[in-house]
Amino acid sequence: MREAFHGDLSRLGSQLAGMSTAAAAAMRRASTALLTADLGLAEQVLVDDAKLDAQRAECEEHAYALLALQAPVARDLRIVLAATYCAQKVERMGDLAAHVADTARFNHPEHAVPAELESTFATLGEITASMADRLAELITAPAAGAFAELEQVDTQVDQVHAGLMATISAPDFEHGPRIAASLALVARFYERFADQSVSVARRLDFAATGELPTA
Amino acid sequence: MREAFHGDLSRLGSQLAGMSTAAAAAMRRASTALLTADLGLAEQVLVDDAKLDAQRAECEEHAYALLALQAPVARDLRIVLAATYCAQKVERMGDLAAHVADTARFNHPEHAVPAELESTFATLGEITASMADRLAELITAPAAGAFAELEQVDTQVDQVHAGLMATISAPDFEHGPRIAASLALVARFYERFADQSVSVARRLDFAATGELPTA
Repeated sequence: MREAFHGDLSRLGSQLAGMSTAAAAAMRRASTALLTADLGLAEQVLVDDAKLDAQRAECEEHAYALLALQAPVARDLRIVLAATYCAQKVERMGDLAAHVADTARFNHPEHAVPAELESTFATLGEITASMADRLAELITAPAAGAFAELEQVDTQVDQVHAGLMATISAPDFEHGPRIAASLALVARFYERFADQSVSVARRLDFAATGELPTA
Repeated sequence: MREAFHGDLSRLGSQLAGMSTAAAAAMRRASTALLTADLGLAEQVLVDDAKLDAQRAECEEHAYALLALQAPVARDLRIVLAATYCAQKVERMGDLAAHVADTARFNHPEHAVPAELESTFATLGEITASMADRLAELITAPAAGAFAELEQVDTQVDQVHAGLMATISAPDFEHGPRIAASLALVARFYERFADQSVSVARRLDFAATGELPTA
């Protein structure tokens, strides 16, 4: 029974790692759609998001079944609960990628991002997607200090985000209130995606050690 | 033992209801701080938010202990897991109220909201705070159809939010890109607060019936 249980836990981990990889791919595609005004790609991200929602539900049902049938305690209990927590966060990461894609769709055929800000948004897209990829690795092969590692990357995201907000809010921003409002929201989607990644990493550390790292 | 367990569940419910009431109060105060540029009140909301974070942690520890010691199944298991899920969502509602308060603080002594939009933000503040108050009631005295009820209120929030975004994004918006960006973000904090309320209501229905209502 213990062996079967650990097989189940391992499958739960694979589901979650798969979701993180999907969230990374969603964010990469959403950023490309945003920066190239690619309507088809944006719509693909929106369609794919429903899959991630379904995977979260599967993950949760799997965890429920484990709790009801096996009544795990101590570290095993922490891991099962961490998996449901992380599945929700990764689903939310997918939602945020979908919001980026939706911004591309809404503005099409116009580009949502002015040319001079494209490289900044590309940077946000690449850093945040790499955070989700890293989570998939950390779920598959747990390593100590996941939280500290992801938090460091999040600091970079916060810096890029702050610079972007300063540009958007500057008196000489020349694209008007509509673009400013839209860019502030898209920038926030990236920032929140990074925040969720840090929350997942924090919970991975907790599952492993029984202690929540504090910032 | 069953009686003790149900006493524990009831305490978990009281904790969660208390958190929802606190989130409602936070949103009401944050809105007042935003609309009156009241720095002291804004800072109070930010200080109080730490209490809600601590309450969420307590709720979660309580739920962990219940799972580890009592190994509930079926409806009892769903209720315990729903409580941890809802505690996270309500904590997030507190964070969003704190973001509204932070906007007031950041802009002080200026008013963050132009005079002609004050009543719209006041409406958002009142509707969203009342959603959190209603959640507290529904947690204390469960009633069928929590999701449908809160979703209906959320539709009102979405309509007010959409109108606000149209105003901010209109070519004749006269307050410039900085204010437009700031208002788009604050409006989103209210909208997300309402979304989280609907998620909590959805999970309350699930705890009661074993089925997740679908929108």
